[in-house]
Amino acid sequence: KATKCDSFEGGLSAAKLLVESGLNPVLLEARNRVGGRTYTVQNKETKWVDLGGAYIGPTQNRILRIAKQYGVKTYKVNEEESLVHYVKGKSYAFKGPFPPVWNPLAYLDYNNLWRTMDKMGMEIPKEAPWRAPHAEEWDKMTMHQLFDQICWTRAAHRFATLFVNVNVTSEPHEVSALWFLWYIKQCGGTMRIFSTTNGGQERKFAGGASQISEAMAKELGDRVKLGRAVYGIDQTGNLVEVKTVNEEIYKAKYVILAIPPGLNLKIHFNPELPPLRNQLIHRVPMGSVIKCMVYYKENFWRKKGYCGSMVIEEEEAPISLTLDDTKPDGSVPAIMGKRRICEIYARVLGSEEALDPVHYEEKNWCEEEYSGGCYTACFPPGIMTQYGRVLREPVGRLYFAGTETATEWSGYMEGAVQAGERASREILCAMGKLHASQIWQPEPESLDVLAQPFVTTFWERNLPSVGGLLKFMGVSSFLALATAAGVVAYKKGLLPQS
Amino acid sequence: KATKCDSFEGGLSAAKLLVESGLNPVLLEARNRVGGRTYTVQNKETKWVDLGGAYIGPTQNRILRIAKQYGVKTYKVNEEESLVHYVKGKSYAFKGPFPPVWNPLAYLDYNNLWRTMDKMGMEIPKEAPWRAPHAEEWDKMTMHQLFDQICWTRAAHRFATLFVNVNVTSEPHEVSALWFLWYIKQCGGTMRIFSTTNGGQERKFAGGASQISEAMAKELGDRVKLGRAVYGIDQTGNLVEVKTVNEEIYKAKYVILAIPPGLNLKIHFNPELPPLRNQLIHRVPMGSVIKCMVYYKENFWRKKGYCGSMVIEEEEAPISLTLDDTKPDGSVPAIMGKRRICEIYARVLGSEEALDPVHYEEKNWCEEEYSGGCYTACFPPGIMTQYGRVLREPVGRLYFAGTETATEWSGYMEGAVQAGERASREILCAMGKLHASQIWQPEPESLDVLAQPFVTTFWERNLPSVGGLLKFMGVSSFLALATAAGVVAYKKGLLPQS
Repeated sequence: KATKCDSFEGGLSAAKLLVESGLNPVLLEARNRVGGRTYTVQNKETKWVDLGGAYIGPTQNRILRIAKQYGVKTYKVNEEESLVHYVKGKSYAFKGPFPPVWNPLAYLDYNNLWRTMDKMGMEIPKEAPWRAPHAEEWDKMTMHQLFDQICWTRAAHRFATLFVNVNVTSEPHEVSALWFLWYIKQCGGTMRIFSTTNGGQERKFAGGASQISEAMAKELGDRVKLGRAVYGIDQTGNLVEVKTVNEEIYKAKYVILAIPPGLNLKIHFNPELPPLRNQLIHRVPMGSVIKCMVYYKENFWRKKGYCGSMVIEEEEAPISLTLDDTKPDGSVPAIMGKRRICEIYARVLGSEEALDPVHYEEKNWCEEEYSGGCYTACFPPGIMTQYGRVLREPVGRLYFAGTETATEWSGYMEGAVQAGERASREILCAMGKLHASQIWQPEPESLDVLAQPFVTTFWERNLPSVGGLLKFMGVSSFLALATAAGVVAYKKGLLPQS
Repeated sequence: KATKCDSFEGGLSAAKLLVESGLNPVLLEARNRVGGRTYTVQNKETKWVDLGGAYIGPTQNRILRIAKQYGVKTYKVNEEESLVHYVKGKSYAFKGPFPPVWNPLAYLDYNNLWRTMDKMGMEIPKEAPWRAPHAEEWDKMTMHQLFDQICWTRAAHRFATLFVNVNVTSEPHEVSALWFLWYIKQCGGTMRIFSTTNGGQERKFAGGASQISEAMAKELGDRVKLGRAVYGIDQTGNLVEVKTVNEEIYKAKYVILAIPPGLNLKIHFNPELPPLRNQLIHRVPMGSVIKCMVYYKENFWRKKGYCGSMVIEEEEAPISLTLDDTKPDGSVPAIMGKRRICEIYARVLGSEEALDPVHYEEKNWCEEEYSGGCYTACFPPGIMTQYGRVLREPVGRLYFAGTETATEWSGYMEGAVQAGERASREILCAMGKLHASQIWQPEPESLDVLAQPFVTTFWERNLPSVGGLLKFMGVSSFLALATAAGVVAYKKGLLPQS
């Protein structure tokens, strides 16, 4: 008998696999609903709306497999019309994942930025980022520091900041460069993670993401116990004892914790966790995000030729990326966004209609005790190299799942499924039902959602960086180089201060 | 009736003040002993030894006041003979808090390092570091980054790293510059925090630091309940309900949590904590330290003219600072240090006797579930400005103590007492027994342990930094400046990479 704490899709898919393997698991869920960081709300105004994890795309084959099993269909997020890039108070329509850049120096800089991040990512093993050749060096740096080194133009630096904000709901100065580069890499690179079409935001589930959890929970029936926050785990006896706040005790041979690492702290352990894990779980906070939807009477942006995706660069703007959230049949027009910013929508889309929303939905994930934040856990500088290796290392009969422990699309629903199934197979292996080599299993590609490769052009691969260009121009003359370096030192705020 | 969770001296001094004010508090302690991060062990080999917080010094007047009330005496840590600075494989004897520097450029650099940190500290309000004029800028930087900007010589950079390691048991790349500068400032500056004589390590308690907690606990009698880890706090009723892992329920009008912020996570709250606090408590990990004592038959270092204090700069060395831990009467010779490093002691002290310890004691604070680490909570970059203001902001009938919430000697026993007494007075104020202006109270200076000011010389105040010197030399010639800047850019690894 195996017990699991909490759900997200991770705990449910772990339980599902265990049942299919002939075991008898119980799933203890802290909340009064399943789904964890996915959260679909149904009401008259919206029909349904995903106020938590919602997007899926090509290469996320595990969650697509499970969705298909339960007959949950996907649909494409609208990207028919143009996207809008709003910068320095002006809107520019564009197509493709990233806004185009016209200034030649800025173009080199942007091009080099994506290329460098992806190149660095290639050095990082997705299953063990702490083994990257430059792990120590990169882990000591924040992404802010790395951007200071890579970017020569203010435009690229600003957009790089937005890229971190949007992908991991944190600031570049808060996160380790090693961790962030790993995060991008294990999602398939800068293009895959940021793109709508052919990327992480290509699709949504028709009817909402929580349907999958609900269908799985329904199938598991009585095994799923809601409102069972776990506060104690005792491994000192023959069976592991799990205590819940509603004063029940569950006994199991094995336990999977399918929760973010930081939420391990909600549990009092006997015996105590080993020192590294005891410290790890204090060191990986969850990101900060309020997910919001603004509803309109009409799809006015499409009429203006905009698809609803906006990339907004503005100091103090409460939002930096939006997507169309209109239903696939065109009903219930909505843009993912935030209350105070209808004003911004009006400016960006050049339309007064943005000021008259008919409905609004939001979910502040920062206030959720049993998530701690969203979307995922972030690693501050220094933590990955020191503590990363114990992230999913079992402790006695405790096994660790949760999307944070995944090696592909960690931070996403896909990662949660990968982690839950892997943890279940670890238990099957411990029981002698499976060979250790079968714990990690690759997933065949979904036949419904195919991945296209991202092709880079000769020039994208071979154009110099701004730094390279300056170096090339200055190579014949020490003076020119020194002057250039002087400019850099000035730009970097490194000239002697006193 | 008021309940408190956990002790350290903070919870006990809070309870003591409440009893003296006519209230009826109960103190719930997670461990089976009081004292928290202080931990005195008694045995035949050592008589007694402090394996946790141990040192006190001038300006720590609150803990000195309480110690005196219970007749616990202090004694001076031995610093009669010379200290040793071990660097590049050689030992240099010295006197005073910091090792002397002979290379003139390095001297300027060290001098400027301490001066700059203290000057920056003067800008930071100790009760609200997030209000410092440069709060945002400094909070985005790690101390590693700040040292990159301040230090021009490798020697100063290396010693600066040791300074962070020793004071907050963390790495410079892990902590926010704003937070660390605040930490040094609220301890009285770089000299006060680092010094033995006239500083934070001047004295120890004869018989061990835990005696104070034990005496307070004895006085509080039945009010102190050991082995009562708290897992639930419910504020929805008329009284606050506090649930413990041994399945008791306590009811109180007010609750003080005298625990590190991260350990708030051990508790399931109803209603949930507000969003900022819910996220703060995931973001402030405890430092990492193993405290060790090596015992010898004889005080061989004193015979060689060394007091037992060693400042050890060596890559991979498991220790960077030691102090003599011999008893005040000269018995039980010991050096604070770590097992594998008797070898290092032998090298540093130039004595084979270091290889033959007679006894060894250690305590790994990283494995303590109810501390999470030691000595204190560290703020990674970005956290102080975003979350600092809720550190001790009450939540309903919950009040927050613990040394992390102090404004003087936070991180020390002194801070724990300040915080515990302040939180008690907040409750007295909420009950109408005290005016809000009386919550924060200054402490008169101890008559037994007097503080001397640290005097700086004219030259220490006015010598240029290395940067200033280069700038001065180059001011008449742009070329020279550009060259210098080129050198810096090179040193900082900022020259174009590709």
